[in-house]
Amino acid sequence: MADAAYLRELGQQLRVDSVRAAAVTNSGHPTSSMSAADLMAVLLANHLRYRFDDPKDPANDHLIFSKGHASPLLYSMYKAAGAITDDELLTFRKFGSRLEGHPTPVLPWVDVATGSLGQGLPYGVGIALAGKRLDRLPYRVWVLHGDSEMAEGSVWEAFEHAAYSKLDNLTALIDVNRLGQRGETMHGWDLDSYANRARAFGWHAIEIDGHDVEAIDRAYAEAESIRDRPTVIVARTLKGKGVNEVEDKNGWHGKALDHPEAAIAELGGERNLHVEVQAPEPAEPHRFETAGPLELPRYEVGSEVATRKAYGDALAALGKARGDVVALDGEVSNSTFAELFAKAVPERYFEMYIAEQQMVAAAVGMQVRGWRPFASTFAAFLSRAYDFVRMSAISRATYSLCGSHAGVSIGEDGPSQMALEDIAEFRALHSSTVLYPCDANQAARLVATMADLDGISYLRTTRAATPVIYGPDEEFPVGGSRVVRSSDDDEVTIVGAGITLHEALRAADELAGEGVHARVIDLYSVKPADGETLRAAAEATGGRIVTVEDHWPEGGLGEAVLSELADYDGPVHVTKLAVAELPGSGKPAELLAAAGIDTEAIAAAARALVSAAVEA
Amino acid sequence: MADAAYLRELGQQLRVDSVRAAAVTNSGHPTSSMSAADLMAVLLANHLRYRFDDPKDPANDHLIFSKGHASPLLYSMYKAAGAITDDELLTFRKFGSRLEGHPTPVLPWVDVATGSLGQGLPYGVGIALAGKRLDRLPYRVWVLHGDSEMAEGSVWEAFEHAAYSKLDNLTALIDVNRLGQRGETMHGWDLDSYANRARAFGWHAIEIDGHDVEAIDRAYAEAESIRDRPTVIVARTLKGKGVNEVEDKNGWHGKALDHPEAAIAELGGERNLHVEVQAPEPAEPHRFETAGPLELPRYEVGSEVATRKAYGDALAALGKARGDVVALDGEVSNSTFAELFAKAVPERYFEMYIAEQQMVAAAVGMQVRGWRPFASTFAAFLSRAYDFVRMSAISRATYSLCGSHAGVSIGEDGPSQMALEDIAEFRALHSSTVLYPCDANQAARLVATMADLDGISYLRTTRAATPVIYGPDEEFPVGGSRVVRSSDDDEVTIVGAGITLHEALRAADELAGEGVHARVIDLYSVKPADGETLRAAAEATGGRIVTVEDHWPEGGLGEAVLSELADYDGPVHVTKLAVAELPGSGKPAELLAAAGIDTEAIAAAARALVSAAVEA
Repeated sequence: MADAAYLRELGQQLRVDSVRAAAVTNSGHPTSSMSAADLMAVLLANHLRYRFDDPKDPANDHLIFSKGHASPLLYSMYKAAGAITDDELLTFRKFGSRLEGHPTPVLPWVDVATGSLGQGLPYGVGIALAGKRLDRLPYRVWVLHGDSEMAEGSVWEAFEHAAYSKLDNLTALIDVNRLGQRGETMHGWDLDSYANRARAFGWHAIEIDGHDVEAIDRAYAEAESIRDRPTVIVARTLKGKGVNEVEDKNGWHGKALDHPEAAIAELGGERNLHVEVQAPEPAEPHRFETAGPLELPRYEVGSEVATRKAYGDALAALGKARGDVVALDGEVSNSTFAELFAKAVPERYFEMYIAEQQMVAAAVGMQVRGWRPFASTFAAFLSRAYDFVRMSAISRATYSLCGSHAGVSIGEDGPSQMALEDIAEFRALHSSTVLYPCDANQAARLVATMADLDGISYLRTTRAATPVIYGPDEEFPVGGSRVVRSSDDDEVTIVGAGITLHEALRAADELAGEGVHARVIDLYSVKPADGETLRAAAEATGGRIVTVEDHWPEGGLGEAVLSELADYDGPVHVTKLAVAELPGSGKPAELLAAAGIDTEAIAAAARALVSAAVEA
Repeated sequence: MADAAYLRELGQQLRVDSVRAAAVTNSGHPTSSMSAADLMAVLLANHLRYRFDDPKDPANDHLIFSKGHASPLLYSMYKAAGAITDDELLTFRKFGSRLEGHPTPVLPWVDVATGSLGQGLPYGVGIALAGKRLDRLPYRVWVLHGDSEMAEGSVWEAFEHAAYSKLDNLTALIDVNRLGQRGETMHGWDLDSYANRARAFGWHAIEIDGHDVEAIDRAYAEAESIRDRPTVIVARTLKGKGVNEVEDKNGWHGKALDHPEAAIAELGGERNLHVEVQAPEPAEPHRFETAGPLELPRYEVGSEVATRKAYGDALAALGKARGDVVALDGEVSNSTFAELFAKAVPERYFEMYIAEQQMVAAAVGMQVRGWRPFASTFAAFLSRAYDFVRMSAISRATYSLCGSHAGVSIGEDGPSQMALEDIAEFRALHSSTVLYPCDANQAARLVATMADLDGISYLRTTRAATPVIYGPDEEFPVGGSRVVRSSDDDEVTIVGAGITLHEALRAADELAGEGVHARVIDLYSVKPADGETLRAAAEATGGRIVTVEDHWPEGGLGEAVLSELADYDGPVHVTKLAVAELPGSGKPAELLAAAGIDTEAIAAAARALVSAAVEA
């Protein structure tokens, strides 16, 4: 174990390197790094168990910088550990460098992207849950946390869950440097305010001077010894510690120092200490036994089954067949049907209560360790976690979300429970997949497909039972679509998905009775969308297209179709049917009619396009 | 004051009416209503000060059902108070009824829509802040809160802010009925778990039996007497109280009773008590003095000014000219420039720290009382509050949001700080307006315009200083656009906004040097978008259009343009330039180039469209 003198020197080295890194592009957060340098020096030298030469070692500890803006400190630790060179350190924030302004998993030692505050601890809870209940390994999760970000509610979701799940493998270090971006925090150096809140939530709390390396060392040892409770170390620190020009002074957040050379001299000059970080004991993660090959549910064509029910059935089947699949739900598992997984595979089911941010963060944390999480709630309530989903795309995370109760078709519960923006939300993410099945067999197949997709995949399910129109052995590739109705005489194309596909089919029947031939496309893969089939339909039907969606007009299925036709050369005339007015309560059929997305509205729109063409 | 016997009878009436209402469409949440019936009976009869005949009376108390699913109870209170008839009560959840599944401001006595849990208390904080610091009236805010929803982090943002702001005019009533939707909550009937958390956050907490009307009455009186702290009343209750078939039983959430007639009999039958709710003392809200007519900032054409700076300048000017304008910021006011308002009009500025959900909720709460809030943070971090924004549209709320630091053009800070989905987010909202200025004079004008818009208006600002191209007296109506460059020989149209408008102008210059005439449209009003001008440009330039945006390809400016051209009859070929790959850190110009949305990329896309036309 490193002694106090060494630890103090190491802390100074981390400060010096933070100042040097920020000086390169004259940007970054050196003062926020300097406050936590001693906390990190002691951790790196004496407590972290991590193989920098094998970041995928399942026995490794996990270190998350929730205060991601202190990236100069993190990268200086990597240098001290020999993971990066000094030359690379000095590429900080340059175009093309792995050392971005805020850490991302472009670096193999970073589990999750941070930089949106209040997210690190919820991710840490996810990894710690994986450690306890999935991997069953003794690794520890250390989260470096700012004091400003304690104002984020997501942090308290994490405090609640960590205590509830008795995560004694989780330690939060709050760097109480008193100063936020534009001034003092609510609580300044009132360490008790943080410690008392944490204790009320069931945590063990230790208050220390965050620049006393011996006190830090003792606090970490105490945290490691506490059983059945997570520990928070509340550390009083000075922002910009060690450089008089900036120490504990307002106005220095997110700025490189004006006089880096003088600051480095004041800190005692450059050092080149190399830390031999302790390796963890070799260990292999737990693997769950499975019950045999995947047997997806099979629904009879012509029966009526809700796609949300198929989600639950398929997820349960997947859980039995694959030991890596885990499920989480936001206290509505009897509505999303995640409860079917919970019954089938209870040891891999996580009840996240009504805490959607923590639910998504837990999923992200679990996928860090290679698990395949499926997290579900009402689609409307996934909007609560949108910033976490956004950040998880930057984390290059791979997991699946299911949002049930989409659209006005849910009926009496009213608009607060109706997702009408979820397709727009999930399309506008890097490397996302958006799937929207119309029948139970299709939903089940898509669930199985999602378990092998990279990135964030989203499944939108419907509350109502809908007719099963596809056989159980049909396949639905991502990026595909189904032409459900077509002939050589088609005059108009109708594109729907989910609940509106059935309205579209009924509209096509009605039109057929009038002698109007309509092609019907099931665009179950909204992103990526099947441009080829859409363009072929445009070609075949004189460019006359009706899109219909149980969603606001913006960012949904209609605009996905328009984007695919943007560079189509022929004439195109698209009538976009969507929910334009705020709905209320009512029967599903009444609400679909009021929104102008039911059979009648579709038939009328198709008829109008065809007559306009005849008249022209 | 009503006596205990009357209060008990009133509680039973509220239960009976809740059961009756849910029986109408055989849906709703009677058991969640029954647990809180005694709490609400005592409030209505003895403590609430409210003129149901004048819901806009500024002296009225405010009652928020955070557990919005207990709407049968709320509507039964309205009936008892004489605000609605029994006949109307029995329209609950029917199509066209004001009595929706969850309460919305379609009803004049409802301040905010609820139904997404964990939102009522943050809205209550907003109204209580308005009472203390803006209206300066003694009204009280009462929030009926469920126990399940205590797991939402947003609740703890509200606990933090209410204590910090010493909101002794705010009382939270936690209906601890132990049972959530699918089973027991984390804490069951452990009242201490809630009370201790609340006390650690600085609240006064009282634990009671929530069916003991005398204890409830005393607790309310105590809450009214406490100074400088908000009070939470933690009430032990029984879900489905009073009906043996469902009382304290799991599996009865969100379901009408199977035997409503028997339940009504068990509850002692129908009653028709009428409560004369106490009226508040008449009082007028405070009005702030103003400094004279609006004098917007004026920037010199050709100078370089960031639109975020113009936001701050204009907001400060607006605050000086209008006493109803208030500003809030999420601890980044030195980045968004909301600090200029804070300096100019400190008494109407609210520092919300890093709590975006509470920030948006406070804005929504303040507009309930007629104030005009402008709330700002980095555009990326508004995604943290998306569910609150979503719900505020259902609340028919009128307020403005400003998101700064949009897009890859922010540079070195990296992707966590880059909003690339915000246009999609804010377009996909009912009755929203999305504005994206390219220069400082335009930004200032749009800020002034936003102060008179109905609904939710969103302004996207840019970090970098950009050239001022418009004079300070030019006007920019919502739904308009500007044709910045055009000639009779235009062969292609380039549509940009914000940062990309300047790239588009440079591309047009470059193309002009090659003899290619490009029309350039500034689509500063992204929603509503100026379809007429876009269609005229398509007509004039052979349907050749390049759209360019510092945003993901989905749901942004490009798709807004496509939607306006969806029913355009001529041929259209749109090349959509947007950010397709995950960016890193770098200089703004490097990142715009890497994303393919800079001058060179635009010129290349325009050139390709024109050559393809020549070849065809």
